[in-house]
Amino acid sequence: MGKGRLEAFSDGVIAILITIMVLELKIPHGDTIAALAPLLPVFLTYVVSFVYLGIYWNNHHHMLAAVSRVSGAVLWANLHLLFWLSLIPFSTAWMSEHRFPPIPTAVYGIVLLADAIAYLILQTALLRAEGDDSSLRAAIGSDAKGKISALLYCLGIGLAFVNRWLGLAVYVAVALIWLVPDRRVERHLTTGSAKPIEQARRE
Amino acid sequence: MGKGRLEAFSDGVIAILITIMVLELKIPHGDTIAALAPLLPVFLTYVVSFVYLGIYWNNHHHMLAAVSRVSGAVLWANLHLLFWLSLIPFSTAWMSEHRFPPIPTAVYGIVLLADAIAYLILQTALLRAEGDDSSLRAAIGSDAKGKISALLYCLGIGLAFVNRWLGLAVYVAVALIWLVPDRRVERHLTTGSAKPIEQARRE
Amino acid sequence: MGKGRLEAFSDGVIAILITIMVLELKIPHGDTIAALAPLLPVFLTYVVSFVYLGIYWNNHHHMLAAVSRVSGAVLWANLHLLFWLSLIPFSTAWMSEHRFPPIPTAVYGIVLLADAIAYLILQTALLRAEGDDSSLRAAIGSDAKGKISALLYCLGIGLAFVNRWLGLAVYVAVALIWLVPDRRVERHLTTGSAKPIEQARRE
Amino acid sequence: MGKGRLEAFSDGVIAILITIMVLELKIPHGDTIAALAPLLPVFLTYVVSFVYLGIYWNNHHHMLAAVSRVSGAVLWANLHLLFWLSLIPFSTAWMSEHRFPPIPTAVYGIVLLADAIAYLILQTALLRAEGDDSSLRAAIGSDAKGKISALLYCLGIGLAFVNRWLGLAVYVAVALIWLVPDRRVERHLTTGSAKPIEQARRE
Repeated sequence: MGKGRLEAFSDGVIAILITIMVLELKIPHGDTIAALAPLLPVFLTYVVSFVYLGIYWNNHHHMLAAVSRVSGAVLWANLHLLFWLSLIPFSTAWMSEHRFPPIPTAVYGIVLLADAIAYLILQTALLRAEGDDSSLRAAIGSDAKGKISALLYCLGIGLAFVNRWLGLAVYVAVALIWLVPDRRVERHLTTGSAKPIEQARRE
Repeated sequence: MGKGRLEAFSDGVIAILITIMVLELKIPHGDTIAALAPLLPVFLTYVVSFVYLGIYWNNHHHMLAAVSRVSGAVLWANLHLLFWLSLIPFSTAWMSEHRFPPIPTAVYGIVLLADAIAYLILQTALLRAEGDDSSLRAAIGSDAKGKISALLYCLGIGLAFVNRWLGLAVYVAVALIWLVPDRRVERHLTTGSAKPIEQARRE
Repeated sequence: MGKGRLEAFSDGVIAILITIMVLELKIPHGDTIAALAPLLPVFLTYVVSFVYLGIYWNNHHHMLAAVSRVSGAVLWANLHLLFWLSLIPFSTAWMSEHRFPPIPTAVYGIVLLADAIAYLILQTALLRAEGDDSSLRAAIGSDAKGKISALLYCLGIGLAFVNRWLGLAVYVAVALIWLVPDRRVERHLTTGSAKPIEQARRE
Repeated sequence: MGKGRLEAFSDGVIAILITIMVLELKIPHGDTIAALAPLLPVFLTYVVSFVYLGIYWNNHHHMLAAVSRVSGAVLWANLHLLFWLSLIPFSTAWMSEHRFPPIPTAVYGIVLLADAIAYLILQTALLRAEGDDSSLRAAIGSDAKGKISALLYCLGIGLAFVNRWLGLAVYVAVALIWLVPDRRVERHLTTGSAKPIEQARRE
């Protein structure tokens, strides 16, 4: 079974999710700069969620590029990932409309954590289909980044109850880890396995 | 005539239908866990309808993979299927917003039944184009699952007037039949023809 | 320049337009059959507009299948067609929400006419790029159906001011001409050139 | 890494953005020609923004056609472009709903300028991946049009505070430069390098 349609369907869903979020930027009633001000938290969380969906699309792209064929289990693992990604616009809107109170901020982190776990499940399903000496296996390496991200989401969810800005800061930090990789840090953390990850990311 | 565009167009429509439903999760006015509670029935029916659309996308994917070319009749049978699938978000929202009263719950079942019939029509159009000794013919077998599903939808529609939860339980059960196939049951029900179905599903 | 992206982009836009219309089916406040009744005109016009967009997708599919490459002029002619198609959901909603008064019913016909003209322009741009002895030229023939449709839209627009149901009947009739082709009529109207049209439609 | 998915994902996002804007055409309460009148500014800005998104899709199409492979940096530069394009519907709606006051009209220009800069960044990322003696390098030439557009956006933003219609006129003029290229002007402005641009555009 070819992977073309799985990629096309995932592209479609992620493209719609990204653009659904922009609908939350409600047209201001006034026509001044001041009228834009209340939109700022909505806009900034839009940026963060856009980057998150961009990271998932990017990683999905790389992971599937290293794969030659997909199984029935992979199709469902992929739909499962898309399900949790589909909750990002809702949790983004809930969090930003109320100016980041603890519960919605924690729920946002829980959705991010569920996305990360769903991605891990998809990765596992793909690895099972591809085998241990596949190029996907080599490209993923020890997946230190994925594991650290999951831990950081848990930290962020907890911190949301202590101080909302600390919780948010952790979520932004995880996005930055994926967006702006410091190669030295990465090399320290994952030693030898860092190279294949980097390689797959750059290709 | 190639099947690429038919697949791409169907992927696009199903991707949009899946994401339209998430718009029904209206942002709560409060910022507490209690504020999320009224969303629960909407969320749970979202899960069921997401799974249904996922099943249709999955089966559509498998069926088209076994096909080499499409005819004009197939194009229209496919649009006909997409039309009935497009009513899933509406009937899901009507049913869940009113907490599953008999009429909307029965209408939801009628839409599911119409989807199943439309899928059967598409399957028949494809079989006519492919011929009786095609790999599609072998993959479909006796289509016991499809026939049982149609019967169960009718049962669910009737039960919706007796007890809403029984009606819903039947709809969920049909989704589970497609999602978690018990191979022994399937083998009993369809004897020899079960193998090709399974084969097509696993490939 | 390949035609793949032009097809994919058009598929995306038409898929979204078809599913946007379903959002006009507003969830009824009641949970009875009676609560569904006011939706009937909206539902029926949804069916008509769905069929129209389906016809355009279908014909676009066939026309592009007969083409090997596209020019810059073709790209813009295609965007021009998509622009007029994008007005179908708006004019459908305006007409059906007010129960088919003369002006909105005429405007619906004007949008259908503009779609037909835009399609003709795209066809002309493709023919110019392909040349007169191309398979596209043969497939299109005298385009009697296209010309008759344009005349019928004008008739429908005029009739909308006399009797709304007559205007609507003409729009539905044009859709049926494309949906259920009476081969004898077609053969009479276009004599020799009917065959290539039919051929292209059937392939 | 192939460019297919990047193209498909961009097609999806731009297709959705184009159709989101049509949702701003709110159904009039009346059913007369007079009821349509207040929609005119919304409709005309829809046309302008549709043309702008069409230009970006068109140029994106041409630029990617001249490219053989994409890098990780290109993926992010492309997402960055899509982010700024995603703000076109919002800024279009804000500007047209308030009948073109200075601030929203200037913000519209700023979004157009950001789009132009994001496009330039993507172009630079692609050139770095392709090298200086690539066909992309030749096709882009001196990019006089891109540079002049950026300057004109700045002019339009400034003029929005003097007279809203002058600001808008500049935005429309830039769209026309891309839509209806006067070849003689272009040749004068860019001398030798005009040819490759034209060539790439026509192919």
